[in-house]
Formats: sequence, structure tokens, C-alpha cells
Amino acid sequence: PEVKKIAVISGDGIGPEVVAEAEKVLKRAEELFGYSFETEHALFGGIAIDEKGTPLPEETLSVCKNADAVLLGAVGGPKWDSNPKELRPETGLLGIRKALGLFSNLRPAVVFDCLKDASTLKPEVLEGTDLMVVRELTGGIYFGDKFRRQGEHGEEAVDTCVYNVAEVERIVRQAFEIAQKRRKKLASVDKANVLETSRLWREVVIRVAADYPDVELEHVLVDNCAMQLLRRPASFDVIVTENMFGDILSDEAAMLTGSIGMLASASMGEGAFGLYEPVHGSAPDIAGQNLANPIATILSLAMMLRLTFGYADAADAIEAAVAQVLNEGHRTSDIAVDKSKAVGTREMGDLIVAAI
Amino acid sequence: PEVKKIAVISGDGIGPEVVAEAEKVLKRAEELFGYSFETEHALFGGIAIDEKGTPLPEETLSVCKNADAVLLGAVGGPKWDSNPKELRPETGLLGIRKALGLFSNLRPAVVFDCLKDASTLKPEVLEGTDLMVVRELTGGIYFGDKFRRQGEHGEEAVDTCVYNVAEVERIVRQAFEIAQKRRKKLASVDKANVLETSRLWREVVIRVAADYPDVELEHVLVDNCAMQLLRRPASFDVIVTENMFGDILSDEAAMLTGSIGMLASASMGEGAFGLYEPVHGSAPDIAGQNLANPIATILSLAMMLRLTFGYADAADAIEAAVAQVLNEGHRTSDIAVDKSKAVGTREMGDLIVAAI
Ligand SMILES: CC(C)[C@H](C(=O)O)[C@@H](O)C(=O)O
Ligand SMILES: CC(C)[C@H](C(=O)O)[C@@H](O)C(=O)O
Repeated sequence: PEVKKIAVISGDGIGPEVVAEAEKVLKRAEELFGYSFETEHALFGGIAIDEKGTPLPEETLSVCKNADAVLLGAVGGPKWDSNPKELRPETGLLGIRKALGLFSNLRPAVVFDCLKDASTLKPEVLEGTDLMVVRELTGGIYFGDKFRRQGEHGEEAVDTCVYNVAEVERIVRQAFEIAQKRRKKLASVDKANVLETSRLWREVVIRVAADYPDVELEHVLVDNCAMQLLRRPASFDVIVTENMFGDILSDEAAMLTGSIGMLASASMGEGAFGLYEPVHGSAPDIAGQNLANPIATILSLAMMLRLTFGYADAADAIEAAVAQVLNEGHRTSDIAVDKSKAVGTREMGDLIVAAI
Repeated sequence: PEVKKIAVISGDGIGPEVVAEAEKVLKRAEELFGYSFETEHALFGGIAIDEKGTPLPEETLSVCKNADAVLLGAVGGPKWDSNPKELRPETGLLGIRKALGLFSNLRPAVVFDCLKDASTLKPEVLEGTDLMVVRELTGGIYFGDKFRRQGEHGEEAVDTCVYNVAEVERIVRQAFEIAQKRRKKLASVDKANVLETSRLWREVVIRVAADYPDVELEHVLVDNCAMQLLRRPASFDVIVTENMFGDILSDEAAMLTGSIGMLASASMGEGAFGLYEPVHGSAPDIAGQNLANPIATILSLAMMLRLTFGYADAADAIEAAVAQVLNEGHRTSDIAVDKSKAVGTREMGDLIVAAI
């Protein structure tokens, strides 16, 4: 079979530990399904700042560009938090998104039945919650001009939020297509009663919707969406929104599920190229202690196999193995009710490998 | 006693009904506590569009400017939703905030003990939740330049987010002062890892904090705040943030409580001037049917008596009357478990008047 290239970025904190488990799973999938992968590791984030003096070294970028997909652990930590902007892990994250053209962030928020008590929401409210936030990732206020100036009233700071029609159309079409493969419902979130970029957004959504008559569309204002996610989470299928709103709402949606250590994400570019990473952060407080939950990274790998490579059989098998291990009652300490019975990062990885 | 002037804006939908109950309560407070109020009604929002051709007639603005405080019901409705921008109720809302200099929106989110089952959150998570969002209301992306232009890639829309030091300092000092009178904890919410306005915001917060050493300060990124509100709502005391983040987070916080028909708000200008309104909307679907819950408006009136006029005795009495009526088991249909036993808007008003 064709050899597929995966760039592996372990990153900081628990990143290396969770990525190591996903690599074990990858190897097992290779054996069982006859696929062939070549992995190349690269430095990124805090560790790259320490070793190369920049969060996103040129070399890392070319490893990623040469690959078909990127697997990322986690980046950042207090060590670099007070660095100047160019020497911060987040700057690397924004840089890699732009450089690789990762315009679409897919954030599934699914409630695992056997974990639904972990949520702070009532189980009956959560029942059936399975939504996907599609967040625009390379535009909006994140990437517009930002500067300081002397204004009439002293020093002021400025951020600029810009969207063009093509940028909006690209992400919106993707969201409609994802909705078509799911429950055929799309909520487009904006603040069209205040923002010009939101009015443009809504115009594009309305125009594009004509090409997807089978998808039921609703427009939801961002403040209302923050409420409705709490009131009727199960009624959402796909939510599409711009970068800043998506940052906030996808985290709110993730927390609904109660088990952020379980959530995967994909950041997609043109074609099938994608960067896959767990939703959780680098958790420096538990790094190196075999305590981290590797499931979100393993599920991110499954997303990669499905979305970038089209290896649905392997992706299905990994997802089923995760479900089986959970149903058997195995838990890492973040999701264990009885912490004394929790398994470690490596043990969880081994259990999943064995269950594939 | 000195006669205090209150501008009363009933607005649209259920606005007139809930305001009428608050006016009954005001009259009762006048009798019982020996205060003296003069009310003047003015048109605003949808009804002003219909009758005067603009959501914020000059006359309404001068009635408000002549008053010591404004009581607002609710504005908006589907009838005006597809109007051009200048003929939309929201435009009036943004206009009145700017014209009256209402730079600070205070949004308490309190869980009423006898209503805590109404929330979609688990009661044990909500236990003790009593927070106040202080939202900057006349700056940021709401009021910056907005326009369309032809860019390199076709038509684009632009919104500008601007904050100056003085604007940030004013709201932040107010938040610190509010925290001093509460549990002495302040969470400042920003996106300092991405936005220049947030970096300015954080610099000002850090500088101003030196004047309030008794207040415990934390900086929370907006995405993380959206999560922490779900995970540990009771741990927040005062949250201060800029306009757009405040719009989203104050609605999320409101929904936590499960009873948005109970939540009051104040929008404060310089000095003691303020506009007081319920958090809920105009609910056109139930308008004119004696179904709306007047409690949020009545509690907004209590906030006015306390914050603008310093009439703590009357405010305390109104709040105690609301609590008593609820504890006796009276409910409007929005919060009733058994809807057949629900009381109407007017009956709820009468019960509260009688309990003062
Ligand atoms: C670290 C930060 C720049 C980033 C973002 O805001 O996009 C993060 O919150 C995320 O969602 O991936
Ligand atoms: C109607 C709208 C303009 C307004 C806002 O976004 O400020 C509303 O959501 C609010 O919070 O009062």
C-alpha cells in the first residue's frame, strides 16, 4: 500500500505521553489493516522555544508540509506564559494554522454514555448530545491588524475583524456538507444585529443554503447560542461560526460533555490535509507522571485515519476499541470515580491497543 | 422628600405588562417608605419605529436625560427583524447606551434556592452560585468602525475593536469596588494571548489592582471562562470583561441559574444614573396574555432603588417580598412545575405588592 506520511508533534506537558500512546495505536492499525505509515517527529511550542528559539521552527513547518497529516499533542505552559509575543507557544499555534492553511476546526462534542455522570449538566438534559462545532480558523479578529496608537483619550489598542465572502463561503459549504452526512441540521452562529462581518456571514449562509435544501438551517445569535447550548444541547447537530465565537462556543460545548480528556479535534486545510489534536491542554501539573488520559489523542488519530486517509475501517476499529475499554470500566484518573482503581496513561494505551 | 424622576419605557412584547407590575410595586414602596417618584413614559424600540419612524426618538432621549433613572421593559420582535439597520430596535438599544453614557452593565446571576431545580445544571454544582458579570457597554467591537470594502479577494466586511486606557480603567475600577462589597474576588476575562485590546485590558487591570489589595484577582481567558462557568459556577464572585465577551458570558451565566425570568440588570452611567431592565427579551409569543413573569422587572426596579437612589430599605423590602412569594410556592408559568397552578402576570404583581 501507499506509504502515508504523518508529522508528529509531541509538544509540551503531557503531549509526549499521550502522543506515544496514539503512536502505539497507529502501529497496531498498520499491522491489522495493512496500511503503511511513516512518521516524522518535529519540535513545536514551548520545547521549540527552548531548543530553537522560536515556537514554530522552519524545519517543523517543512516536516508538516511534506506530510499528509499532522498529529499534535499539546503545547504551552506557565514557563512561557510571560514571554514576549514572538516567543509564546500560542504564537506558534496561530502561525502553523495560517502557514498550513487550516481554515476549518472541527470540534465534535459527544457524550459517552458511560461517562454522562461526569458532566455538571443533568443526565436527562445531556441525553443524546452529539454535536460538531465547525469553527473558521484562519480569519476574523485573530488575524486582522492589531496595534497601539495614541487616540484622543490617550493610548488605545485596536484589533480588526475582517472576513471576505470567499472565506465565509468555504467554511460554510464545508459545514453544510458535514451536516448532510449527519442529522442534516445546521446552526449558523453570528452577531448580525451588531457586527458587519456577521451580516456578511449571514448573507453568504443564506445564499449557500440554496445548494443544500436537505439541510435544516437556523441562524442563532452568539449570546443566544451560549444559552441554548445549556438549555437544549441535544437539539444541535452542526454549529458553524467564525473564529472568535467558535473559540468560546466550542469550549463551552466541550465542557458540556464533562469529559474533556476524551475529545478530539481536527483542523482541516484544502483537500484532505489536516492537523489532529486533543481538545485538552498540556496540563503541566500532571506531566511525566503517567496520569494523563490518552483517549482524546487516540480519537484524534482515528479522525485523521477517517478524514485525511479515508481509512474508515481502521478508524471504526479504534473508536470501537475505546468504547469497549470504557464499557469494561477502565478509567484514567481524570474520569475515574474511584481514583484508586484508575489506570495510567500507558495502561490505557495498552488496553486500547489490545481491544482493536 | 425630594421627588425623583423615573423615565419608564415599556417597549415591545411583554414589556408593557411586566413594567405595569413594577410600577405597582413602585407605588407601594412610595407609600410605605415615604419616598416620592414622578414617572414619565416614553416610546422606544419597535413601537417607536411604528409610531415615530425611529427606534430612539429625540423626545425619548430627552425624557431619559431629564430623569434620574430609566426603567425599561423589553424591546424587539420578529416584526422588525428584517428592517434595515436604522429601523431596528437593537439600533435603538445601542443608541441609548451611547447617548446616555451607560458604560457598565451589571448582570447578577443568582440561583434562587427554591428554583434551583429549574437549571439544567446539577443542583450540587449550582449550590451557592451568586455571581455578577460587569460588562463594558459602550466600547469595543460594538462601537468601532464597521464597513464593507472591495479587498484582494472580493467583497469583505470589517469590524473594528478599540479600547483606550481610560475606558478600561473606568469599568475595571467599578468592578473592583463592587467586588469589595461582595466576596472580594474578581475574575478579569480577556483573550490576551491573541488580542491587542485584551493585552491593554490586562495591563490596566494589573495596574489598577494595586489599589485594591483586599480583592483576590484572577485573569481568565474567555474560552476558559466559558468552561469554568459550567464547571465551578459557585467559585465566581465578580467577573469583569469587555463588551462582546460580556454579551456572551453574561447570557451563559444567566442560563446557569435556570430562571431567566427572574434576572435583573442595571446599565450604569457616570454618577448614579442608570437604566434598569430585565435580562429576558420581549417574548412576543406570550405578549398580552397575562403569562409573563414580572419578577425580573420588579427586581430591576429594586436595583434602581438601591443603586441610583440609595433607598436600601425599599430595595430590601421588595427583594424580601419576592423571596417570600416564591417561598410560599407561587409561580408564573415559566417557572411553575405544575403549570395548571401557575399565577398570571398581574396576580404575581399583586402578591408581591401585598408582601412588601
Ligand atoms: C491558544 C489559543 C491561541 C487557541 C485559540 O484561541 O485558538 C486555543 O484556545 C484554541 O482554541 O485552540
Ligand atoms: C440586542 C443586542 C444588541 C444586545 C447586545 O448584544 O448588547 C443584547 O444582546 C444585550 O445583551 O443587551
